[in-house]
Amino acid sequence: MDLAGLITDPATLASLSHDEAEWAPTGTPRAAYRPQSTEDVQRAVRECAASNVPIVPRGAGTGLSGGANATDGCLVLDLSRMNRIVEIDQDNLVAVVQPGVVNDDLKKAVAAHGLWYPPDPASSPWSTIGGNVATNAGGLCCLKYGVTRDYVLGLEVVLGGPVEYGTKVRLGRRTAKGIAGYDLTSLLVGSEGTLGVITEITLRLRPAPRPAGTVVGAFGSLVEAGRAVALSTRRGLQPVALELIDRACLQAVEDWKHLGIEPDTEAMLLARTETPEDADGLVTAFTDAGAVWTERSTDSAEAEALFAARRLTYPALERLGPLLTEDVCVPRSLVPAMLARIEEIGVRHGVQIATIAHAGDGNLHPLLITPPGDDNARIAAQAAFEDIINEALALGGTVTGEHGVGLLKRDGMVRELGPEVCAVQQAVKHALDPLNLFNPGKA
Amino acid sequence: MDLAGLITDPATLASLSHDEAEWAPTGTPRAAYRPQSTEDVQRAVRECAASNVPIVPRGAGTGLSGGANATDGCLVLDLSRMNRIVEIDQDNLVAVVQPGVVNDDLKKAVAAHGLWYPPDPASSPWSTIGGNVATNAGGLCCLKYGVTRDYVLGLEVVLGGPVEYGTKVRLGRRTAKGIAGYDLTSLLVGSEGTLGVITEITLRLRPAPRPAGTVVGAFGSLVEAGRAVALSTRRGLQPVALELIDRACLQAVEDWKHLGIEPDTEAMLLARTETPEDADGLVTAFTDAGAVWTERSTDSAEAEALFAARRLTYPALERLGPLLTEDVCVPRSLVPAMLARIEEIGVRHGVQIATIAHAGDGNLHPLLITPPGDDNARIAAQAAFEDIINEALALGGTVTGEHGVGLLKRDGMVRELGPEVCAVQQAVKHALDPLNLFNPGKA
Repeated sequence: MDLAGLITDPATLASLSHDEAEWAPTGTPRAAYRPQSTEDVQRAVRECAASNVPIVPRGAGTGLSGGANATDGCLVLDLSRMNRIVEIDQDNLVAVVQPGVVNDDLKKAVAAHGLWYPPDPASSPWSTIGGNVATNAGGLCCLKYGVTRDYVLGLEVVLGGPVEYGTKVRLGRRTAKGIAGYDLTSLLVGSEGTLGVITEITLRLRPAPRPAGTVVGAFGSLVEAGRAVALSTRRGLQPVALELIDRACLQAVEDWKHLGIEPDTEAMLLARTETPEDADGLVTAFTDAGAVWTERSTDSAEAEALFAARRLTYPALERLGPLLTEDVCVPRSLVPAMLARIEEIGVRHGVQIATIAHAGDGNLHPLLITPPGDDNARIAAQAAFEDIINEALALGGTVTGEHGVGLLKRDGMVRELGPEVCAVQQAVKHALDPLNLFNPGKA
Repeated sequence: MDLAGLITDPATLASLSHDEAEWAPTGTPRAAYRPQSTEDVQRAVRECAASNVPIVPRGAGTGLSGGANATDGCLVLDLSRMNRIVEIDQDNLVAVVQPGVVNDDLKKAVAAHGLWYPPDPASSPWSTIGGNVATNAGGLCCLKYGVTRDYVLGLEVVLGGPVEYGTKVRLGRRTAKGIAGYDLTSLLVGSEGTLGVITEITLRLRPAPRPAGTVVGAFGSLVEAGRAVALSTRRGLQPVALELIDRACLQAVEDWKHLGIEPDTEAMLLARTETPEDADGLVTAFTDAGAVWTERSTDSAEAEALFAARRLTYPALERLGPLLTEDVCVPRSLVPAMLARIEEIGVRHGVQIATIAHAGDGNLHPLLITPPGDDNARIAAQAAFEDIINEALALGGTVTGEHGVGLLKRDGMVRELGPEVCAVQQAVKHALDPLNLFNPGKA
């Protein structure tokens, strides 16, 4: 391929060949390329089309489903150098960014103008907006403020298919509303790099967030915590975030940091609220559902301390071994039922499972812990992973709430969508990428 | 065609052959059909595919762009009899409805459960959810609460294309989050019946709205009113609705109802707010921008009186002749500039134009008034209509904010999207409807 600056050094290629999904298959790329501009991307796509080389776009590689993993012989397109904030338009609540801008960097830049970009995946200190858009990333505050798709107004994309490979187009708009033609912008969001390469993103912003308070409740059983979530919904409360952590998470955090979490606490709910009415309502709902204790604070240091267990869960569990991260979502009223099934699955397969959940959304992240180097444990964890997917589908749920399909959820997606919808998906893929060059074999 | 209950009576056919767009071309259908079930729709689609008969789906026919107008020889599929609210799930904030359910009927039904379906097009007393979804309808409160697309979680659709014509599929989900596969749900929303027939809709609901106050401001110039809108945005205020009506609207209302609107009022802003802070902030912003007077109220009867001018604008103008309704949307900071250009266009073509605007969204509805039976006036209005579209595009806007492309905006859409994006749109259409049976020639 005739591209200046192609990377072929094996060590660099290896580091660019996968995301953070455990045990997802990884191929060997032919080369990697770090475009500095849209024109660079166009050139790369044209070259790949001429030589029939698959293209695997990637950002920071913080994904958890293998969506950015290389396929054999591909060109890895690392967009992290296209990291310019092109524009922040305070009057129209719009930001225009290149795909390599890191989520937290954008948050900081718009905050300086009194504005807010809400999507807050846990990876926000490292993950890029391009990757967030490709996977339609969620986070904690999507309970009240929506996911990445809700903030993408328009895209500049390098396409193939019905136009010549390497053609740059603008999809969407920068106005608040606009419905001319099919919503190709939403089609591209969450398409995991399989329909084209996103080179610029026009984002909707919000006014600065209002100061948030924190409400925490400790429960003697998962069922009571589930009831508290259901009561909050029924009573029309609108917390910004409503998180659940189970006993296994609390235990791992306590063993590590000795925060003084009572050993009879089976589940903890942590909420952020924007109004005193919502905070009052949550305390009452938690209490009515049988909370052992509740606590609330509007002081930010105190709030930080109350959320410590949530923040420390992932690192506390990682000390125990590699984590296989699940991402199922069920109707929110079925969170307690799903938690019970996850527990059964863990017992059945002899796998240690700790669960954090965006409980208000019904989005659960069971974390399957595997002792390092134990192959049987890995196989058991992978079997448990598939069982969790099947149980979520049986409850009317989905195989991925916010992490994406990538490689780990492909079979699950087929089971969720059924053959007819998969045929429609493939027809759309074929219409936009007839050569099957964009991230083949994903999503 | 072998379908029981086919309608061929010319008078009924004529009434089912068009929506409420002025002067959009209307064809003569072969027949109409009123399905009572999804199976009826599947049967009709299969029959049409077998005989190569185009299908034009419609709801209440309140559209303003000709999207539901018949084409010659088509089957009109009138979905208004499929009007059952299938389910209201209070625990999961979800409603499942057939497409013929009227927007206000759904609002009332969910309100009885303490819930809210926010999208509020002006047609809500008559228009159906199916039509709202097909056109991605907006309304007043989308400023804070989003448009129809933001509330559609999933769809049951009868498709053609990659599956056999007449195949029923389920797209999307009923969970709060979910990203398995391309977002075909969002692709169908706003597709104006060109990709398949929607037979069931799963909608996201919200808790009951909080009581709203009203703030009104009168301004001596459009520029000052525009400045007030910009100040509100800059200061992070979040009104539910922020509407502008211009002098021509006020005059027509005053001539008809004698409300006592001062003759030197060039523009009026009307807002609904959910918090006292937002109401205070708006009064200050209006005053700072030079408002002649402002008024606020939390009393609902008073609020209704304050909004009277907005509510009466359309009927007041209709007394003067048929209205050609525009629907451009520009970046919100350019609303004053767009208003000035609309005024120039009216003068240039000798057309009387009155403008109401969802000012907070930048979505303008210039209403072109044509004396009844005056052909030259109609031709002048149509020329002004095209000029308004071109000026909106020149300001970085869109040809349709919420009414849809239909027949009236097809040329404008091509100008907005450009040939490459149109080619991608057509590739998607061809992939999903290779026989070009679903509402051909629209969108």
